[in-house]
Amino acid sequence: MQIPILKQGHVLVVCIHAALTDRDLLQLRDELALEIGQRRSHGVVIDVSALDVLDSFASRTLRGIAQTTWLRGAKTIVVGIQAEVAFAMVQLGLVMEGVETALDLEEGLALLATSEGASGGRD
Amino acid sequence: MQIPILKQGHVLVVCIHAALTDRDLLQLRDELALEIGQRRSHGVVIDVSALDVLDSFASRTLRGIAQTTWLRGAKTIVVGIQAEVAFAMVQLGLVMEGVETALDLEEGLALLATSEGASGGRD
Repeated sequence: MQIPILKQGHVLVVCIHAALTDRDLLQLRDELALEIGQRRSHGVVIDVSALDVLDSFASRTLRGIAQTTWLRGAKTIVVGIQAEVAFAMVQLGLVMEGVETALDLEEGLALLATSEGASGGRD
Repeated sequence: MQIPILKQGHVLVVCIHAALTDRDLLQLRDELALEIGQRRSHGVVIDVSALDVLDSFASRTLRGIAQTTWLRGAKTIVVGIQAEVAFAMVQLGLVMEGVETALDLEEGLALLATSEGASGGRD
């Protein structure tokens, strides 16, 4: 399944609408790493609000995506983790250390904008 | 192999054009620490875009260089990590925590310029 990657200014936005297979997630990681280079993006927001489960592979891959994009020069924020999903993740110990999060897409974009502002705004 | 260190204003630029031996990397670290003092630099950009592999020693040394230059008063940004290199690094757990990154030399210099601006400009 192709996951659309939208561009908003210097930010790439990925809305995950349905449960993804492990292969989809890896494909997303590869595409994001390339798009960051092509579109010179400084940030990535991944919206997982439609997901009602985030298993160990998915959370590990999201963390891997965040680390990969960081090495490519862009900051990733995961947004929209539902309360029930968060409960389950914590119980399973899947806390995605080192990954920034925000409540929803709006907050995620605001967070990226302010962190760019703090570093002086790369624009 | 001598790695050239270029000066651009208050920034030192190092372009790594070929795979380096461990000894070259340590020599680069030593030279950078000295040059920062001699040239009163506030930032260092290390361009690794020509490298198609960054192993554990190289990434650890880059991190060590970043920490060394920081203690000497200059911020290091590693730029140009290729997508494939980033995937491999994340899989091996070589995420260079604490090291700032940017897409390419241009973005790295812009980041340093704005972070100097944000900190009031040490010039």
